[in-house]
Amino acid sequence: MIYLDNAASTKPFREVQEIMCYAMENIYANPSALHKQGFLAANLLKESSIFFANQLGCAKDEIIYTSGGTESNNLAILGAVNAYKRNGNKIITSVIEHSSVKEVFNYLEQQGFEVIRLKTDLDGYVSLKELEDNLDEQTIFVSIMHVNNEIGTIQPIEKIAELIKKKNKNTIFHVDAVQSFGKILFPIKNIDLISISGHKMYGPKGVGILYKNKNTRIVSLLHGGGQQKNIRSGTENVYSIVGMHKAGEIVFANLNKHLEHYQKCKNYLWKNIEQNISDIKFNGASNGAPHILNISFKSIRSEVLMNVLEQNDIYVSPGSACLVHKKNKNILSFIGTSEEYVNSALRFSFSHDTDIKDLDKVVDVLKKEIPKLRKVTNGGK
Amino acid sequence: MIYLDNAASTKPFREVQEIMCYAMENIYANPSALHKQGFLAANLLKESSIFFANQLGCAKDEIIYTSGGTESNNLAILGAVNAYKRNGNKIITSVIEHSSVKEVFNYLEQQGFEVIRLKTDLDGYVSLKELEDNLDEQTIFVSIMHVNNEIGTIQPIEKIAELIKKKNKNTIFHVDAVQSFGKILFPIKNIDLISISGHKMYGPKGVGILYKNKNTRIVSLLHGGGQQKNIRSGTENVYSIVGMHKAGEIVFANLNKHLEHYQKCKNYLWKNIEQNISDIKFNGASNGAPHILNISFKSIRSEVLMNVLEQNDIYVSPGSACLVHKKNKNILSFIGTSEEYVNSALRFSFSHDTDIKDLDKVVDVLKKEIPKLRKVTNGGK
Repeated sequence: MIYLDNAASTKPFREVQEIMCYAMENIYANPSALHKQGFLAANLLKESSIFFANQLGCAKDEIIYTSGGTESNNLAILGAVNAYKRNGNKIITSVIEHSSVKEVFNYLEQQGFEVIRLKTDLDGYVSLKELEDNLDEQTIFVSIMHVNNEIGTIQPIEKIAELIKKKNKNTIFHVDAVQSFGKILFPIKNIDLISISGHKMYGPKGVGILYKNKNTRIVSLLHGGGQQKNIRSGTENVYSIVGMHKAGEIVFANLNKHLEHYQKCKNYLWKNIEQNISDIKFNGASNGAPHILNISFKSIRSEVLMNVLEQNDIYVSPGSACLVHKKNKNILSFIGTSEEYVNSALRFSFSHDTDIKDLDKVVDVLKKEIPKLRKVTNGGK
Repeated sequence: MIYLDNAASTKPFREVQEIMCYAMENIYANPSALHKQGFLAANLLKESSIFFANQLGCAKDEIIYTSGGTESNNLAILGAVNAYKRNGNKIITSVIEHSSVKEVFNYLEQQGFEVIRLKTDLDGYVSLKELEDNLDEQTIFVSIMHVNNEIGTIQPIEKIAELIKKKNKNTIFHVDAVQSFGKILFPIKNIDLISISGHKMYGPKGVGILYKNKNTRIVSLLHGGGQQKNIRSGTENVYSIVGMHKAGEIVFANLNKHLEHYQKCKNYLWKNIEQNISDIKFNGASNGAPHILNISFKSIRSEVLMNVLEQNDIYVSPGSACLVHKKNKNILSFIGTSEEYVNSALRFSFSHDTDIKDLDKVVDVLKKEIPKLRKVTNGGK
């Protein structure tokens, strides 16, 4: 099989599986237990926190473990907005966020908050002018993603963070870094909250991180035993945290190698598709994230082409897996892509072990099938 | 090592580890992905739901996966109370609930709800008279645990459920079954919501279930992709759900054997402690859960005795691991246990593979150390 849906979920490294089994077999006590076995489990959490803190450049107590990217985003947004709601009523996001940010803002809007949704240019870059114009004394919170999950556009987060704090130093800035952590580095300066997911970086599902600056307050979503300094109650998911830690170690030790490989795959596939197939459109910015390639194939519905690829054991997505349940529109409809290209997009997303020879097979299938599909479409008109 | 802290966390079965690794290696796509690899992952979730639905006697769509017992309890209580708050302002729980129920009620009390906390008798049984007296048209929600995590008392849930629905058929009834699922069976009739945890039944940490009757409404805690029929957004923790499913299969296939073994351990340890050590007290009901034995050793602080056992590679807890962070009192202080026994309790909790011969070693250590400790305590007076 040729799996090119790594932006939706990655295959955990073998070492991740091994360390998770080791922990399940040997260090299974409750990390809150006051005996040595509990301390051993708590120590695994501490080691993981030190590792991730070192990668981010923060203190270990600023690492909070969650059940994944969705919980991290919800905890960051709901938590901070509720903590600072006395300071103002205005919150800002963009039109291209992941469902787990977008839907939280929709919910807060229903609760009476004024929500500003920043537009983007055709490449998917958020309007800094619009952001600047909207930042005022009433603005308590801004959430902007780093790497877009569908088209890979990388927002200039450092610049955005600086702009926000310059206009209002009390505005809390949250970054959804689910698609970028372990791929595109960025300084955490001027950023208060960062969301990270385990299964997007060759770790297990069901585990994530929220970086929370020590001076930032958030209201908890879960009440209970007061684990994680009372910010996130519940027995910590020790095995998955250890697995995510191991994945992080491998990813950061191989960062440049991986990035080069992603970029090579992206360039190779794009070049070959461009040379062989007409009426296509590259979606996103030219210098977007190297692991994501989004292309529209005029006159062919995404689902149809996806199914044809699937018949050849090639797996890609039309967009985000998280759009499926609510039948939400894909991001192209929000960044001004012309109608004929909006519903014909496919996202190819690469792994550290994507075989470049497999990409030839992908192009072969596209070359063979697309003219046939277009003939049917045109004939049906 | 002699691990007798299984009520805090259990060691996952070897088969659980194996199936989790199999899934990580082979079925790692996002279960929301619309291609075959995604369907394979979604199918694992479906099979797990069918299994748990069969055990509970409900429909598969009534199974919601969460990140564990704490999230299940929070989602059940906050979710239902928010969904039904227009119907009334009164909510009922008991004084002996786990932190992840107790703290949610404390939070709701701060939000303006009238909270009734039912008292218990000396064995830890909730007062049915007090419950009946408090159930009225304003009562929208009741939460009572099945098996108490510290002393093992089993509430007559079937009777309680019937009583609630008889007084007000619209009152939602939630049962925290974290310590009982896979051990003590009970019919779900008249119960609307049930919380279950994976790591208390030889499964992984970081995963749990909320049973939600199809007619019961709850407001979501997490907003996002709309997974699990929009009740619990976030990519499902496929590997851990599969692991919990495997644990459930083994547990239910061996239910009677396990129960007999727990009971044998409990009877054996209690009998030997009773015969060899003076000034002790059995805490809880005589017919409590077979895997939990809670004993107070007069004049010795729990922590001191726990440490002495630890020095002999024996691991037990003074009570719930989830009491640690908030320095909460143990349950004995709420059920009327006399002062001298409240702070001298130890909980021994058994596993399917607890070796009965190891219990002799426990008794030997207690026999040897307790007189010494009491001498010190008395001498210090």
